[in-house]
Amino acid sequence: MKKVRIGILGLGNVGRGVWKILNTNKDEIRKRSGYDIEVAKILVRDVNKNRGIDVPKELLTDNADEILDDATIEVVIEIIGGINPAKEYILKAMKNKKHVVTANKMLLATEGDELFQTAEKEGVMFYYEASVAGGIPIIHAINESLTANKIEQVIGIINGTTNYILTKMTFENMTFEAALKEAQEKGFAEADPTSDIEAYDAMYKLAILTSLAFGTKVNVKDIYREGITKIKPIDIEYAREFGYVIKLIAMVKEREGELEMRVHPTMIPERHPLANVNNSFNGIYISGNAVGDIMLYGRGAGDLPTGSAVVSDVISILRGSADVSAISVVKNNFWNRKPSPMENTRSEYYIRISVKDLPGVLGEISTIFGEEGVSILSVMQKGKREDYTSVVYFTHTTLEGNINRAIEKINKSGNVKQIDNIIRIENIQ
Amino acid sequence: MKKVRIGILGLGNVGRGVWKILNTNKDEIRKRSGYDIEVAKILVRDVNKNRGIDVPKELLTDNADEILDDATIEVVIEIIGGINPAKEYILKAMKNKKHVVTANKMLLATEGDELFQTAEKEGVMFYYEASVAGGIPIIHAINESLTANKIEQVIGIINGTTNYILTKMTFENMTFEAALKEAQEKGFAEADPTSDIEAYDAMYKLAILTSLAFGTKVNVKDIYREGITKIKPIDIEYAREFGYVIKLIAMVKEREGELEMRVHPTMIPERHPLANVNNSFNGIYISGNAVGDIMLYGRGAGDLPTGSAVVSDVISILRGSADVSAISVVKNNFWNRKPSPMENTRSEYYIRISVKDLPGVLGEISTIFGEEGVSILSVMQKGKREDYTSVVYFTHTTLEGNINRAIEKINKSGNVKQIDNIIRIENIQ
Repeated sequence: MKKVRIGILGLGNVGRGVWKILNTNKDEIRKRSGYDIEVAKILVRDVNKNRGIDVPKELLTDNADEILDDATIEVVIEIIGGINPAKEYILKAMKNKKHVVTANKMLLATEGDELFQTAEKEGVMFYYEASVAGGIPIIHAINESLTANKIEQVIGIINGTTNYILTKMTFENMTFEAALKEAQEKGFAEADPTSDIEAYDAMYKLAILTSLAFGTKVNVKDIYREGITKIKPIDIEYAREFGYVIKLIAMVKEREGELEMRVHPTMIPERHPLANVNNSFNGIYISGNAVGDIMLYGRGAGDLPTGSAVVSDVISILRGSADVSAISVVKNNFWNRKPSPMENTRSEYYIRISVKDLPGVLGEISTIFGEEGVSILSVMQKGKREDYTSVVYFTHTTLEGNINRAIEKINKSGNVKQIDNIIRIENIQ
Repeated sequence: MKKVRIGILGLGNVGRGVWKILNTNKDEIRKRSGYDIEVAKILVRDVNKNRGIDVPKELLTDNADEILDDATIEVVIEIIGGINPAKEYILKAMKNKKHVVTANKMLLATEGDELFQTAEKEGVMFYYEASVAGGIPIIHAINESLTANKIEQVIGIINGTTNYILTKMTFENMTFEAALKEAQEKGFAEADPTSDIEAYDAMYKLAILTSLAFGTKVNVKDIYREGITKIKPIDIEYAREFGYVIKLIAMVKEREGELEMRVHPTMIPERHPLANVNNSFNGIYISGNAVGDIMLYGRGAGDLPTGSAVVSDVISILRGSADVSAISVVKNNFWNRKPSPMENTRSEYYIRISVKDLPGVLGEISTIFGEEGVSILSVMQKGKREDYTSVVYFTHTTLEGNINRAIEKINKSGNVKQIDNIIRIENIQ
């Protein structure tokens, strides 16, 4: 049996998953890769920290160069995350002719170009299945299995933390705050949950998916991003009444040669397969002009699911099935699609407004919507809080620009306390 | 731009899909593969038949050797189906150093060994994503993306025709006969539907999935197979009452080192993701010891979805990302897992029996079940037909062997008219 030595940068959650898989599935991995994988070194910040895992202490190092400069190490796994020093480590590994596997979505989404170019220049393989949706093989699917297609749209639930929170809010009538607290207690959300609940995490992942599916460079600044912190139980109730569930949806679709890229809470039809992607699961729905609609579903995070993608990538490298074209998709930017400005987006909208309960207020608001070309499907007024009452509008399909102008005018009305929430509706089939 | 000439064997449904995709998505395919694909020749039975598609007549031939012996053709797509002459054509193409893409599940499931060995010997690539579940990238997923896992089970709805029929029976209370007729009228079922409704099609696909997921040779004779022709609306009603839906499930799971491989109508929990795979869609649920549960969902048949898989395979070949290890998985038979005898299968059962409506009959049957170690979860007696009444049992988990012995005894009772149906229940989580 051939042997290969690998180095691992990072021994956090995913690192422990990789370690467990390499040990538990030794036999499978040997047979499928044709190699005996030996972990040569693991980079950690503190070699003395107790990690509750049976890694021999002599494998640990706090000096990255012990891995990056070791000529006997052929493959490097980067799972420390963040931009620096992950980027420098990866570049150095590539320059030292090591193949690289990463799970680093932020780095790929923001500095991917340089990494892909370096990989190609140095002739090394660079795999990153784990960077989006954990163990779900979405990168492979887009890069290899759906290449005959013109991809029309990608619609995904690609952040497990927010999906867990929204599931709790939907099925157990929890508030956002309570659901977040529970997610933190169960380890589904971090102590500082900003990256998840403000949708940065989903934004980075969407940037990667878009660049691969549409063969174009993506600047994350061109992705409209909105988190889930404003979702209230009452929004979920209204959604249910109209046959929708609220999910944090990341989507990209082509419209007239431009790309709409957005991540925001979205009402989707309760009978759509994505609506049943619950708890911390991820689901990604892709429409191609040949394959039609397909969905991939599974665990988008966690030590073992993410480790599964990382180790499978290592096996792909050992088999030598590097897909250089996949690299080029990003590097060559061959379609160079422009982002579509958010005000050109077309959607239906749910708008909840607190207004003074006076005769004439509803008429005033309706007039404003009409002036801005927003056609109302349904309006509901329920209950009353002090001097104010809550009014909910469901609109027909309209331009985001129209909504923005209408909202600006409505906000100026003395009879309106505040716009409580605006949620886009996506009637995916 | 580099050019490559390909030959296509067959211009039926899938062939037309391949032709359409190669033309409609020319630009995408060029950019993703780096090649201009030229269709050199297409083998048909009758070059004069009108196919309602814009294929230039000079491309058609009824002589396979015009493709197989043409040294300028580098890739051959086999989509005529069946064993002969497809097998001879593929072997000859390989021996003439052509890479081969096939969608031929029956051939792969029964004669795959020789094909894989020949491909390896001749050093050509051999891809077959389209052989299972049309455009759903299940072969790539198992062969490339989940290689770090020990696969524990694969549970799939992998025949669109029967799923369409069962969906119609479930949601529109149709009989099997009426639903089959509609499926035939809409082109979802063939004039002779035997291969689908008797589950031969699903059996071949399961053989392929099993061999890849478990690294073992599979003899289709070791797969238990039962079609859907005996399912009555009343069975679907009982299932619904107990929170199940009836699907034609193809599954393989490992139990004590042996493989349970079976295709049969199955009651599955109505809230499981597979239960919502409806109409002609396919869904495949895989459990791996690292990735956890993942599901792939999409169109499992049709000209364009299947064509998507075929053309994507061609692109993989052009990129040179042949996965030789995938070939070896089958060839080397490295785990050589034995099939588990059906009588050792453990399951819950639904059993519907027509009995004489006499005092003591239920007692007699219950006694027999008890003698054979079959514990009853629930028994229901509803309605009455002439002298007979229908009794339905739901059992606890028991051995298939116990059920068989009990049924044999029950059949001998003078008070029993007939066993109307036995449906296995799979409480997948």
